[in-house]
Amino acid sequence: MSLDIGAAAIARLYTRLPRKSMEILTPYLLFLGDEESSALAKTARGLAHWCPEACIGQLRIGGVGSDLGLPELTPAEASDLGARTMVVGVANVGGVIPEHWQSSVVDALRCGLDVASGLHARLRDLESVRTVAERYGRRLFDVRNPGRTFPVGTGERRAGKRLLTVGTDCSVGKMYSALAIDREMRRRGMSSNFRGTGQTGILIAGGGVSVDAVVSDFVSGAAEWLSPENDPDHWDVIEGQGSLFHPGYAGVTLGLIHGSQPDALVLCHRAGRERVHGFEKFGLPSLGECATRNVEAARLTNPKAECVGISVNTEGMSTAAAENLLDEIGRRLDLPCVDPIRTGVAALVDRLETS
Amino acid sequence: MSLDIGAAAIARLYTRLPRKSMEILTPYLLFLGDEESSALAKTARGLAHWCPEACIGQLRIGGVGSDLGLPELTPAEASDLGARTMVVGVANVGGVIPEHWQSSVVDALRCGLDVASGLHARLRDLESVRTVAERYGRRLFDVRNPGRTFPVGTGERRAGKRLLTVGTDCSVGKMYSALAIDREMRRRGMSSNFRGTGQTGILIAGGGVSVDAVVSDFVSGAAEWLSPENDPDHWDVIEGQGSLFHPGYAGVTLGLIHGSQPDALVLCHRAGRERVHGFEKFGLPSLGECATRNVEAARLTNPKAECVGISVNTEGMSTAAAENLLDEIGRRLDLPCVDPIRTGVAALVDRLETS
Repeated sequence: MSLDIGAAAIARLYTRLPRKSMEILTPYLLFLGDEESSALAKTARGLAHWCPEACIGQLRIGGVGSDLGLPELTPAEASDLGARTMVVGVANVGGVIPEHWQSSVVDALRCGLDVASGLHARLRDLESVRTVAERYGRRLFDVRNPGRTFPVGTGERRAGKRLLTVGTDCSVGKMYSALAIDREMRRRGMSSNFRGTGQTGILIAGGGVSVDAVVSDFVSGAAEWLSPENDPDHWDVIEGQGSLFHPGYAGVTLGLIHGSQPDALVLCHRAGRERVHGFEKFGLPSLGECATRNVEAARLTNPKAECVGISVNTEGMSTAAAENLLDEIGRRLDLPCVDPIRTGVAALVDRLETS
Repeated sequence: MSLDIGAAAIARLYTRLPRKSMEILTPYLLFLGDEESSALAKTARGLAHWCPEACIGQLRIGGVGSDLGLPELTPAEASDLGARTMVVGVANVGGVIPEHWQSSVVDALRCGLDVASGLHARLRDLESVRTVAERYGRRLFDVRNPGRTFPVGTGERRAGKRLLTVGTDCSVGKMYSALAIDREMRRRGMSSNFRGTGQTGILIAGGGVSVDAVVSDFVSGAAEWLSPENDPDHWDVIEGQGSLFHPGYAGVTLGLIHGSQPDALVLCHRAGRERVHGFEKFGLPSLGECATRNVEAARLTNPKAECVGISVNTEGMSTAAAENLLDEIGRRLDLPCVDPIRTGVAALVDRLETS
């Protein structure tokens, strides 16, 4: 697996931890279904961006669905080109696997591919899929399913430094920012691990915990397990989930904050987003209020927690408008404010490196 | 089932909802294991208090364990006296069923009793227990296991009024206060339902959802399901869980707050408690800070949420000291302050009846 973040490096970094690798083989064929919402295809887009060498094609149903610009391949064609796993790279609210997607999954299994899914609903619970996988000796990876139990969070302090990305909403760049920060830290020779907490992050990192699939009593315990004791100068860069201001998911967010015990919070936002995505009756908090409430929550388990910067996705804005916005937010909150794509995250890591 | 809150009345109230009764038969034999911590026997104590007529005896291992003052009965003796279900009425951190408890469970099944458990670990997952239950045609109730799925919370407003008990910690009287408020409301002819969210509350009410066993993504959805749309003057009195200041459980609490959309919060506290129970490195918040943070959280999904009173468990204090404390807290926070056992909860319901 030849990635920006090399698989060998990840494997090496993970050996110190008592965790079983998921061993999902690349290259990937990215299944996009017929879901046209770009936001819902974020798993596929994340993989295409962070593991371009690992993604050899895309599969859409009936020619609709998000287009990642990858070659359109059938499972048979992908298999011929060396693909090892088809990734169901599209989310949908509630996480159910529609019946008309299942025939594509079955087709992939028949063509010799394993199938990995990040949906709540498990591939192995679909009888037709499970039967075919068993018959052809193929593997099903339900990466969102923790596949193990966790203890209740203890709140005990552990060595090592931790950064958690938090956000004003879902889908505002928490995973992207965490990956970019981890990469920048390693570029500088700092000791760092990205810790995935959602399907895309787990598929990119080759490990992690899908915290929103953990039984609620054990969310902070799972976050503690995910970022264990480490060298004092080591950074775990943890992918945040949801938002404290989200009517559906805030509990997941709070448990993740408490278990992660972050020293540093990076607040992520999508420029122009004013309402909660998919829950339009709910407005977003201001960046200042959001930072305050997240720091307040984090200080329960780490009294030194502070917000170290803002990461804004300014996609679609003109360069001048984006620069003005980042500058204005940075001055208003007296914090470094970046767009990981436009400006990179060096300004955030500068602050951590010298702290 | 002849209870303070009659089973027939509960059944009648629940018929309007699309939920399947658990049909756990009484009378109960309360299994207390060998757990001497009174706090961990709260399921058994709650049942003995709220359903005294339904509890005909207690079973302890080796004569140790909390003593509820009920007749000591073996499963055989309890069965002879008419018991129908043995309730594993003792919790333990992490929720595992110790191996040396299992023989008591097997014994009860052999003597013709069903067995109900509120632990995280499921009876049906213990092979020896499941095998015996099947052989003898007995039923296993894992009341903590939701036994169904829930949607993601929507945050959509629904008709009817809701009260949620919140707390400075676990085990401070949130269930007790909710049951007392529900009973007082019904005594006055107000329309009200107690909604159980933990094992004891569910066993008392005959229904509910153990929210801490729900997958974290769906906690607020489960809370919405538990307290559905109702008549505008109807009160759902919802049992709170955990605390926003608990290092292990705060995420559960926040999801429950958001899904419950409470109009009224009652803040519960145990007098003299200064540290988080079992997590002694963590201090409790002040009552004022705790009320503020809970109201702040609740206003995300119900902007009219307010704290309507304080409920303090003053067990073990002298009458004079308890009265002084309640009076002092009430004046300091400018809210009615009661001890449900010493003073009753009339002062809280007065405020709601006239609002």
